[in-house]
Amino acid sequence: MIVIKIGGAAGVGFERVCDDLAPRIIAGERIVVVHGGSDETNRLAERLGRPPRFITSPSGHTSRRTDAETIEIFQMACCGAVNKRLVRELLSRNVNAVGLSGVDGALWRGRRKHAIRAVEDGAVTVIRDDYTGTVDRVNADLLRTLLDAGATPVLSPPGLSEEHEPINVDADRAAARTACALGAHTLIILSNVPGLLRAFPNESSLVPEVARAELDSAEELAQGRMKKKVLAAREAIEGGVARVVLADARVDNPVSRALEGRGTVIA
Amino acid sequence: MIVIKIGGAAGVGFERVCDDLAPRIIAGERIVVVHGGSDETNRLAERLGRPPRFITSPSGHTSRRTDAETIEIFQMACCGAVNKRLVRELLSRNVNAVGLSGVDGALWRGRRKHAIRAVEDGAVTVIRDDYTGTVDRVNADLLRTLLDAGATPVLSPPGLSEEHEPINVDADRAAARTACALGAHTLIILSNVPGLLRAFPNESSLVPEVARAELDSAEELAQGRMKKKVLAAREAIEGGVARVVLADARVDNPVSRALEGRGTVIA
Repeated sequence: MIVIKIGGAAGVGFERVCDDLAPRIIAGERIVVVHGGSDETNRLAERLGRPPRFITSPSGHTSRRTDAETIEIFQMACCGAVNKRLVRELLSRNVNAVGLSGVDGALWRGRRKHAIRAVEDGAVTVIRDDYTGTVDRVNADLLRTLLDAGATPVLSPPGLSEEHEPINVDADRAAARTACALGAHTLIILSNVPGLLRAFPNESSLVPEVARAELDSAEELAQGRMKKKVLAAREAIEGGVARVVLADARVDNPVSRALEGRGTVIA
Repeated sequence: MIVIKIGGAAGVGFERVCDDLAPRIIAGERIVVVHGGSDETNRLAERLGRPPRFITSPSGHTSRRTDAETIEIFQMACCGAVNKRLVRELLSRNVNAVGLSGVDGALWRGRRKHAIRAVEDGAVTVIRDDYTGTVDRVNADLLRTLLDAGATPVLSPPGLSEEHEPINVDADRAAARTACALGAHTLIILSNVPGLLRAFPNESSLVPEVARAELDSAEELAQGRMKKKVLAAREAIEGGVARVVLADARVDNPVSRALEGRGTVIA
């Protein structure tokens, strides 16, 4: 079992990833696909006159400010636009792809953060109307039911809070939780960089391997979006996944290359 | 097996329908839920500065003008907004609801109409860039897999064309096709009217029963959105569904009332 997270950022073409994925799935490999929708959410939010806002936590993590209107926009962009595009790419390659969000069947159940600390103009403020959260439980039974029936689940945020609200969950970390819950041996996180870079954004400074004991320093090295990917890798490894590969989606055969260890391998 | 189509028009509250549905599903009844997203699509299209447009066929049926941008808006509104809201309403009542669109697993496969005839200013024009179609095949296996696993499918347009494009399919007619494919004994179509009215919009002029032989005259009687509901009822009956009930969603216990025959019963 492999879980593959496909980033939605600029330069990532679903076509190349699907060209590489489809023959593997058709040959019988059990694969679960996960995606986000950050860029699509930004575009839709701009068009709706609600430009995206981001907040920075005291520990330096950046996340989307997700008020009641933003979670609706996020949901439409993720489930309505990105998910269906990816499902159609797979279907057109004879893969029986079925798109689900973390809401469906309470697939990604978690806690909504009722108080978020954010740094603004040097001062820490507390935000109480945000719809952000983390995945605590995965409905692995639903995924196994689909996989056993020959379907390939294509999973999208949002998740579902304990109070049945949609919550903005990080797709990298949700993919890690999913890999743990399914007992996957490998988690691949594809994005528009070659992996963890020692000197971001210099792409020739790729870190080829991170041992479990080196995860702390890897987290310090990571910049921007890579921070959450390294955190997701840690959660996957701690949850029993044998190998995580942070790899480039912008190349031909990105999945095969990642499985060959091209990227940053965390094991 | 019952298939229930819930209209999305003004006055239809998902809460009341779900209050009535949940105990039945928990008691073991096999139910598939279908919804549309016409009003939500109108709202989103307005907000995006693309006010909805409608076309009238030479036979008098009205449908949404669905160009490439509109099908994206339609998809976001249906799959991203309405579907997840309905799924959450059911989940909060302990129903293991799983939302799917007609794209997922090629659930609603059909033909895109490559040339649509529309009446404009008294003249017939042909539109060639529309993403409208009809459902020809239903992936009943996927629905049975979910039902057997204790999940309740909640189905939303769009459908999927033979060329793997999303297509705007009428949700009433898609519900009818689904009921036929599953061998459902009953199809309930809930909306914001009590059923077929002899003198629309006079709600006391309800037609309580339509025999199969009376379907032609019922179709002539039907006004506006009711036209497609009567057509859907015909397709369901001709496809082996024993009973179709066109009933009011704006009341308490709308499903139970429909099953008691309150509404327009076509059998």
